[in-house]
Amino acid sequence: MLKIYEFPGFPNPARIRIALGEKNAINKVSFVTVNVLAGEHREAAYQAKNPSGTVPAMELDDGTVISECTAITEYIDNTFDGPPLTGRSAKEKAVVHMMQRRAEVRVVDAIAAYYHHATPGFGPELEPYQNADWGLRQREVAVGGLRYFDEVLGKTPYVAGEQFSMADITLYCGLGYADFTQIDVPAECTNLLAWRTKVAARPSVQG
Amino acid sequence: MLKIYEFPGFPNPARIRIALGEKNAINKVSFVTVNVLAGEHREAAYQAKNPSGTVPAMELDDGTVISECTAITEYIDNTFDGPPLTGRSAKEKAVVHMMQRRAEVRVVDAIAAYYHHATPGFGPELEPYQNADWGLRQREVAVGGLRYFDEVLGKTPYVAGEQFSMADITLYCGLGYADFTQIDVPAECTNLLAWRTKVAARPSVQG
Repeated sequence: MLKIYEFPGFPNPARIRIALGEKNAINKVSFVTVNVLAGEHREAAYQAKNPSGTVPAMELDDGTVISECTAITEYIDNTFDGPPLTGRSAKEKAVVHMMQRRAEVRVVDAIAAYYHHATPGFGPELEPYQNADWGLRQREVAVGGLRYFDEVLGKTPYVAGEQFSMADITLYCGLGYADFTQIDVPAECTNLLAWRTKVAARPSVQG
Repeated sequence: MLKIYEFPGFPNPARIRIALGEKNAINKVSFVTVNVLAGEHREAAYQAKNPSGTVPAMELDDGTVISECTAITEYIDNTFDGPPLTGRSAKEKAVVHMMQRRAEVRVVDAIAAYYHHATPGFGPELEPYQNADWGLRQREVAVGGLRYFDEVLGKTPYVAGEQFSMADITLYCGLGYADFTQIDVPAECTNLLAWRTKVAARPSVQG
């Protein structure tokens, strides 16, 4: 059985739970908690599995460990039945991967940089290097990213076009991360807010 | 005909030229130079095509513009005949995407952060915000990334296993970027250096 290493409630692990939910596959994997707040992800045992030291990671039956959300989602999408999350045609796949990367760089990763560099983050022991100026700059990137996606969602129902995809999952979890770090979605981002309500109603998100 | 917007010699555009070369498809696209050193990528005309303001970007016949190297490479791989660059099975695809992301985060993007933040980069007009401390930290990340990939390449002939893939292209172009920014590959990284010689001999790289 596939094993998912995660920390419940964190934004990146949430992406994988939603992807699995879209495929009706939550019961086809087992979840293992890595105690990130106690630094377990930095310990040798976990680093031997995932040298990136991140959660989530996915362990296949043959022992192969896959980290990085895009890679894990590709596996889930190519393994389980259900609606495609990474596109079908060459063009759809390209658009999904483009929007996935934008949702990472401009929202999820930017918020992570803000959280780990310009707030106490995980606390002094787990944040030995902080660069507040960088973190604050990335906070601005994130707010710009929210405005960008508001514009996108004024034109198409989902982030990568007509169909729900992994890029929606990434952006949706990014908004949860924004809440957690007290970055408000600008009130004028009405397309983004309406899309958020719509995505929140999906069974995969309701969990 | 597919159009590729690029700046010749830059590391990310080079990734797309090699991907096209692997597919014997260099002659199936046209190249358009965006004068990045004059700031053309920041101008409204280019931003209307690619809101990320980056090169490379790829324009399809229907006017759709795809940016982000992973997305462009997915399109190339799924459109042209030739050896697969993004994996075949679900597991291969996952490993390729995982290693692609690591080669970006730990090498190409880390070197870019060093170059744009801790060196003059494109010069004062095009680098209005610099954070030297962040850039120097990312230089350390890059050197750590080179050591990581040396270890990987001690176990498998290519970055994502037995087959050459887009992750090799990314790392290879990252090494070119390291040369350009005067980050030396540590001499003890003999696996990485041997792999580099092998990849350099590929017709797609020879151009």
